[in-house]
Amino acid sequence: MTTILAGDLVQLVGRDHKYRLVRLQPGAELHTHRGMLKHDDMIGKSWGSRVDSHIGRPFYLLPPSLHDILRDTKRSSQIIFPKDIGYILLKLSIAPGMTVVEAGTGSGALTTALASAVGPQGRVISYDSRADMQTLARHNLEALGLEGRVDFRLRDITQGFEETDVPSLFLDVAVPHEYIGQVRAALRPGGFFGSIVPTTNQVSMLLSSLERHEFEFVEVSELSLRYYKPVPERLRPTDRMVAHTGYLIFARPVLEKIAEKKEDVPVEEIQPDGDSTGG
Amino acid sequence: MTTILAGDLVQLVGRDHKYRLVRLQPGAELHTHRGMLKHDDMIGKSWGSRVDSHIGRPFYLLPPSLHDILRDTKRSSQIIFPKDIGYILLKLSIAPGMTVVEAGTGSGALTTALASAVGPQGRVISYDSRADMQTLARHNLEALGLEGRVDFRLRDITQGFEETDVPSLFLDVAVPHEYIGQVRAALRPGGFFGSIVPTTNQVSMLLSSLERHEFEFVEVSELSLRYYKPVPERLRPTDRMVAHTGYLIFARPVLEKIAEKKEDVPVEEIQPDGDSTGG
Amino acid sequence: MTTILAGDLVQLVGRDHKYRLVRLQPGAELHTHRGMLKHDDMIGKSWGSRVDSHIGRPFYLLPPSLHDILRDTKRSSQIIFPKDIGYILLKLSIAPGMTVVEAGTGSGALTTALASAVGPQGRVISYDSRADMQTLARHNLEALGLEGRVDFRLRDITQGFEETDVPSLFLDVAVPHEYIGQVRAALRPGGFFGSIVPTTNQVSMLLSSLERHEFEFVEVSELSLRYYKPVPERLRPTDRMVAHTGYLIFARPVLEKIAEKKEDVPVEEIQPDGDSTGG
Amino acid sequence: MTTILAGDLVQLVGRDHKYRLVRLQPGAELHTHRGMLKHDDMIGKSWGSRVDSHIGRPFYLLPPSLHDILRDTKRSSQIIFPKDIGYILLKLSIAPGMTVVEAGTGSGALTTALASAVGPQGRVISYDSRADMQTLARHNLEALGLEGRVDFRLRDITQGFEETDVPSLFLDVAVPHEYIGQVRAALRPGGFFGSIVPTTNQVSMLLSSLERHEFEFVEVSELSLRYYKPVPERLRPTDRMVAHTGYLIFARPVLEKIAEKKEDVPVEEIQPDGDSTGG
Repeated sequence: MTTILAGDLVQLVGRDHKYRLVRLQPGAELHTHRGMLKHDDMIGKSWGSRVDSHIGRPFYLLPPSLHDILRDTKRSSQIIFPKDIGYILLKLSIAPGMTVVEAGTGSGALTTALASAVGPQGRVISYDSRADMQTLARHNLEALGLEGRVDFRLRDITQGFEETDVPSLFLDVAVPHEYIGQVRAALRPGGFFGSIVPTTNQVSMLLSSLERHEFEFVEVSELSLRYYKPVPERLRPTDRMVAHTGYLIFARPVLEKIAEKKEDVPVEEIQPDGDSTGG
Repeated sequence: MTTILAGDLVQLVGRDHKYRLVRLQPGAELHTHRGMLKHDDMIGKSWGSRVDSHIGRPFYLLPPSLHDILRDTKRSSQIIFPKDIGYILLKLSIAPGMTVVEAGTGSGALTTALASAVGPQGRVISYDSRADMQTLARHNLEALGLEGRVDFRLRDITQGFEETDVPSLFLDVAVPHEYIGQVRAALRPGGFFGSIVPTTNQVSMLLSSLERHEFEFVEVSELSLRYYKPVPERLRPTDRMVAHTGYLIFARPVLEKIAEKKEDVPVEEIQPDGDSTGG
Repeated sequence: MTTILAGDLVQLVGRDHKYRLVRLQPGAELHTHRGMLKHDDMIGKSWGSRVDSHIGRPFYLLPPSLHDILRDTKRSSQIIFPKDIGYILLKLSIAPGMTVVEAGTGSGALTTALASAVGPQGRVISYDSRADMQTLARHNLEALGLEGRVDFRLRDITQGFEETDVPSLFLDVAVPHEYIGQVRAALRPGGFFGSIVPTTNQVSMLLSSLERHEFEFVEVSELSLRYYKPVPERLRPTDRMVAHTGYLIFARPVLEKIAEKKEDVPVEEIQPDGDSTGG
Repeated sequence: MTTILAGDLVQLVGRDHKYRLVRLQPGAELHTHRGMLKHDDMIGKSWGSRVDSHIGRPFYLLPPSLHDILRDTKRSSQIIFPKDIGYILLKLSIAPGMTVVEAGTGSGALTTALASAVGPQGRVISYDSRADMQTLARHNLEALGLEGRVDFRLRDITQGFEETDVPSLFLDVAVPHEYIGQVRAALRPGGFFGSIVPTTNQVSMLLSSLERHEFEFVEVSELSLRYYKPVPERLRPTDRMVAHTGYLIFARPVLEKIAEKKEDVPVEEIQPDGDSTGG
């Protein structure tokens, strides 16, 4: 049975399943709408156990998942949803030890996921032209002890990225189609580019820009997440759902574009995962 | 400009966007339906460049993404789709250095993603009762140099897991509801449990079993991925799509279940990401 | 230009696109949160024109669509959504002059759509065991002048339907699987049966019951309706949507079930509309 | 028990659930891949009964649903799917006795549904500039005995519609945004306009055109239909589905557009059916 220690990040979950994240410090107190909890009463308890506030309201003590942490990101801007982040990490091929570039930093939700995934040997380089956003993101990363893995660049990417030969780069900005030349200059040929935009018009503009800059293997997709009410004898989807977070666009820069031979290219209607074939 | 070296894993992509993965060896040859390529002609080239087969058919030389590798998993069983894997990694909170348990191994697609995500300091412990499946999965991991991160256990989990206090555990088996007692014994309280099943009946049975074994925070969801034809002036979804891969179930074991106070629990219809609140 | 007459049903739409339906009567007044309107000021105006309340708030005068009328159904129970009703009408093959049976009446939304579709020469026979529901439904139909097309049967269908040789029958009840014997006795062989249920468990029970009672050509489906924000230069789906209304089940009774010859039956994965073929 | 008569339209369904529609004529023969059937052997049988071909292959004798008829529409162009047609009929408020205008005729699937819904007292006026399409559509309608309800206009709608004060009008053409002036001239103020287009770019262009021509209450939506495998103990969606048929656009012309008072207009994110409110 693993014991909760001072310095641990704890997810405190009430009976209504709402939660907050707290890093435990000896002597500190946590004040909630459902009463006060002393950190010292939580330190030394087992993970998964229960603690009551001074007015007797119960809470679970849990380690937060990365998913919970991302959902809890303090924000002053729209953040990318975890469902999209999970897919982005695979499409950009993020792994421990890697270097990845993103712009803009925003509130730092994707930055956090990238910093977690690249591990202590990896680097995240994060551009934003707004100092207030980077201050917020830095604060969010510090709360998780991940700030040492991130280089913040307070800079407008209109002037380009400082890096070259970058393996993976993600744009979460309002007009990604205006920066594809700069992306092209920074990315390693064969590298991984991704972006997310909310409107179909932005998708069209980004596609045109990617075409002009010799990108290939362009994929446009959207992910929908539907929850079910977890009742075994009355299983059904929830009544409402998030209908749209954004369109995801992925592409790869190549050195020399191969002209399409139209009759050679099957219209791949479904693009099922696991559809590759040998030569 | 980064150069392709002997020993590198290369994604060779033809004009029809179909690809194969090859590890380059001096002196070797690759035979495809579109002609032969000498590995020596690829070693030393830049990533993203083009190479032609002996009959003049062009191919791109790219580093494969983890997404491409997962899609390409050699299989003798249904594999979990990348869209689901990305979400699973976040929900199970997989990070560099961690230990994670899975059953069954199957063809090893999830095993591969887990092994990549935990990094060289992490461990994946993978159970399967079929030796042929583990042989195939081991072969797939060896092709990627990830086999050193995985401990295979050739064992029926009806007898339980060897591990205890495990932080994260995933079941990809036909009857997960029959193993929840064993999962409970292996998982750390507050740990992360996940599973995927194709039918609603299996979901209901799993939910009942999780209830009996004091799991909390049960989430049932499904992810849909819709592709668009990447044509800027005629943007539209593809005609067909994968309608269903599986239902995802996540839950967490707790030490002492808190009785629900009905009026205290809002019906959370949407469960939007980023919906947490402080106490 | 068509003029609005006394007795016409008018959809009065405010600037916020919320609406109410009113049947115009000389001398009457309509009191709204945005001021009062005299019916006499609306009678004689052209459809599509504007009228202001006594405090100057504008309203459009429009003929209501059947869709608007269904959405506006006064209810004391969940009603079937228009997106589902449209599909049900086609699957049950409802046309002018036909007879159709439904149970239960509920608040009468489907009853209204059926009464409209069968026209003045058709009949809707509507069963419900609750008098209050039928009173409400009758009131709703009277407001539209459609009550003459409906025969209400205040009766529990456990005792069966009075009709036989019915061409189309729809069940919107909590436990449709308990009434399939009664449905079978009422329906003409080759007729059209439909039902809607919210949970997967109900679907499974209904499928078992249909199998026991020699139904064939069973279809289970669900319809999703996603709205877009109608802004030409920023086209995107709305943020949220209705995730689930119900599962639709359709089937047809046959006189003599033909044994399936397994190798003869292709697994029809997609069942695209327009997929029929000649023999 | 209702008996099949000479002149009846029969849906003949084989063991593989594929079907064909046949109008029975004394003395005629039907030749299929599974043997020959004499019409005289079907006339006089009960609906829902079974008949065997001369080589012993079984078929069901069923009345076709309107849904089956629409799916079976002989086509030389893409037809509108039944799921979309059902919704269109409600949104355009089609009812027995009405007049409705459409362009283009195409293969006549929507024409057929409209002709069925307006009944013998109603009229469908159908424009197309291609004689071959109208010939095909007329042939399809004649097979169903519905041709008497349709007026075909062989005419390019660039020159406008002949009708005015039309209650409902649907455009299924490649460039609907080019004809909105003509639509406006034909439609009754407060009438119902609908259209379907496959790409987001067409949606944007149509929205701009509707704005220029004083249309209000613009709705853009898409309907998805997901089928389930009807197996009670293994209920699950089919593996693949139709991902996209088209975007549906509906709008209504008004006489005098009311300026939006921004703070007055709630962003209606979900637009749930049944969301109307009184004043």
